[in-house]
Amino acid sequence: MTTQYTLSRRAQALTSSAIREILKVTERPEVTSFAGGLPSPATFPVERMRQATEKVLREAPEAALQYGPTEGFTPLREWIADRLSRGGARIPASRVLITTGSQQGLDLLGKVLIDEGSKVLVETPSYLGALQAFSLFAPQFGSLPSDEQGIVTDALTPEQLAGARFLYCLPNFQNPTGRRMPLERRQALVALADAAGVPLVEDDPYGELSYGGEALPSLLSMNPDGVIYMGSFSKVLAPGLRLGYVVAPEHVHAKMVQAKQAADLHTPSFSQRIVYEALQDGFIDRHIPEIRTLYAAQCQRMLAALEREFPAQVKWNRPEGGMFIWVDLPGGIDSGALLAKAIERNVAFVPGAPFYAVDPKENTLRLSFVTVPGEKIDAGVKVLGELIKAEIAALPAAA
Amino acid sequence: MTTQYTLSRRAQALTSSAIREILKVTERPEVTSFAGGLPSPATFPVERMRQATEKVLREAPEAALQYGPTEGFTPLREWIADRLSRGGARIPASRVLITTGSQQGLDLLGKVLIDEGSKVLVETPSYLGALQAFSLFAPQFGSLPSDEQGIVTDALTPEQLAGARFLYCLPNFQNPTGRRMPLERRQALVALADAAGVPLVEDDPYGELSYGGEALPSLLSMNPDGVIYMGSFSKVLAPGLRLGYVVAPEHVHAKMVQAKQAADLHTPSFSQRIVYEALQDGFIDRHIPEIRTLYAAQCQRMLAALEREFPAQVKWNRPEGGMFIWVDLPGGIDSGALLAKAIERNVAFVPGAPFYAVDPKENTLRLSFVTVPGEKIDAGVKVLGELIKAEIAALPAAA
Repeated sequence: MTTQYTLSRRAQALTSSAIREILKVTERPEVTSFAGGLPSPATFPVERMRQATEKVLREAPEAALQYGPTEGFTPLREWIADRLSRGGARIPASRVLITTGSQQGLDLLGKVLIDEGSKVLVETPSYLGALQAFSLFAPQFGSLPSDEQGIVTDALTPEQLAGARFLYCLPNFQNPTGRRMPLERRQALVALADAAGVPLVEDDPYGELSYGGEALPSLLSMNPDGVIYMGSFSKVLAPGLRLGYVVAPEHVHAKMVQAKQAADLHTPSFSQRIVYEALQDGFIDRHIPEIRTLYAAQCQRMLAALEREFPAQVKWNRPEGGMFIWVDLPGGIDSGALLAKAIERNVAFVPGAPFYAVDPKENTLRLSFVTVPGEKIDAGVKVLGELIKAEIAALPAAA
Repeated sequence: MTTQYTLSRRAQALTSSAIREILKVTERPEVTSFAGGLPSPATFPVERMRQATEKVLREAPEAALQYGPTEGFTPLREWIADRLSRGGARIPASRVLITTGSQQGLDLLGKVLIDEGSKVLVETPSYLGALQAFSLFAPQFGSLPSDEQGIVTDALTPEQLAGARFLYCLPNFQNPTGRRMPLERRQALVALADAAGVPLVEDDPYGELSYGGEALPSLLSMNPDGVIYMGSFSKVLAPGLRLGYVVAPEHVHAKMVQAKQAADLHTPSFSQRIVYEALQDGFIDRHIPEIRTLYAAQCQRMLAALEREFPAQVKWNRPEGGMFIWVDLPGGIDSGALLAKAIERNVAFVPGAPFYAVDPKENTLRLSFVTVPGEKIDAGVKVLGELIKAEIAALPAAA
């Protein structure tokens, strides 16, 4: 008879993203894509990676090609602990777990901390990849009131926090909005979460990409026992290595290690050792300023184009770092429909709705500015401006 | 207040393996370890990997360091499909998903096919890593009667198969037993599963490691729509790259892709491209015979030592491939207690009990012979023989 593949309920709940299908066309060379979350390949330190690889394969080929410990390569864990300890509180290397990209940290977090129906708090909007990872474990999402400075801590009530398994946020140059949470908000959030006994999960892939002002203290540095911190080498070295990390209090760390063992045994020894070599002699602190300079210029270019091309009814933020700008269109405009029209004119972006855990706002969208050349930014934003003006003109209220 | 980390029920069910703790001491250089599941580093094609890496970083550095498709690097997927199609039935590349080690395939399988309480069938004993991965999703295991030729198909009843989400097995040189399922059993198993409509999951990391006789047809080749097949480069190239793959019918494949996207976005582009380069020009077919020759000699050395040192009451198999020998001690001997004594004399192995999904047999153990030099095999087996003789002498029945 025909073989019966009975899907789990969680697999049945997985839906193929219509957006993902549309965005496949953005791979065509004629398309100007503001959709990707990809870092600019111009920032990849190819020569450095070549040297590091050569060294690893010369000095420790067998260890680099053999199975390794689930927790990760010890010297790399120590490097990460040292770097995170710059902020103040000493973070022991024993809390660091190397993951196969930061995305794996989200999966392990879901496995270890979410039961069906568990209350999980997120920003409004939040990172789509986290919503997807957590959703597999069927939590009940609570979406916290947020503005251009992140979670509105003044509006947070003890009832909202009570009983949450954790509160997930990206304080630095959040994906999708590009916004950063100011110091006072961070302090207030840490105090409120601590008072409620609710763990904070701080996802920080973009923290190093501040264009100018100094870095703000991490939530982790403010309360090491109350925060699970997630970092990544994807935006400061290269994402194709899939190397991230999670810092968690020892007993949570131990459970995540067990979950990771079942998930992929360990992250590739090969790439861990290469990245460790590449990081030596302070390389990252010479390299990151180059990324910041490039992204700041790209951001300025897009902001200038938006100023020039977008009508007054459209709102957007002015990021101080990271890779994204968030756009609010007038109510009634569906950015999904806008995308279909933009694709016809070879321009792409990501509609904002999927970034909402609940109550999606259809009139929002995310623009990435880091990989597109300047002239194409100008031309692409001009096309979007024309399309948005047409949409506004067609709104019932404007009729 | 103190932050409350409430663990999920699945995390609470994860237990730290006492064995794993004991085995940590096996990393001491004075310990002769038959415990590891590690391939011999002497078989790692270091120079080949160096050339492949150099080529990838010269010809496609940006693509190798950038994000890639969740499904995997297309040319590598095509290579795998071509190789699997040698057996007969054409396997389309669209069914191949590249995973972060074969272990990740097990995790994705659990996510997509197991609900709490789902019936999942396994061999007796079965691969520990699979039991761990599936257990996170809380199935009800059924452990099928098995002998030195694998599942006893004659003893399988329709009732046993009915309603199972899948039947998981390792037909080639199984971990932990080293046994191989003969052709008639394979044919019977495929026919029985097909008649019951139950998917087979064929885990095949050791299939290429046959010492002499020809390869037997895969279950996949016998019924491509009824089998999910899992393979790995860990045992034929190197495990530190964490590169495996899952072949599944399109609609199951599609769900696994979605689950993988949430799990780690994709397997490192860097290692996928390196492995693809290393595989060119038929390298693997020149390389695998070297591994077989080494492992066959190591296996013979251990079998000769067992013959010499182990008392007549102990049974073990004579593998025709792979990395493991399975030992049955007389009833009443606990191999966990034996391990503690062996460790005191600097010899290690893995007790058999954790490999049983239900009703663990305490009087079994697994020996790996691939990484230990010949003289140490002789000396280590001698120690085990002495300890086992003492255990037998101390058994109540022998008193």
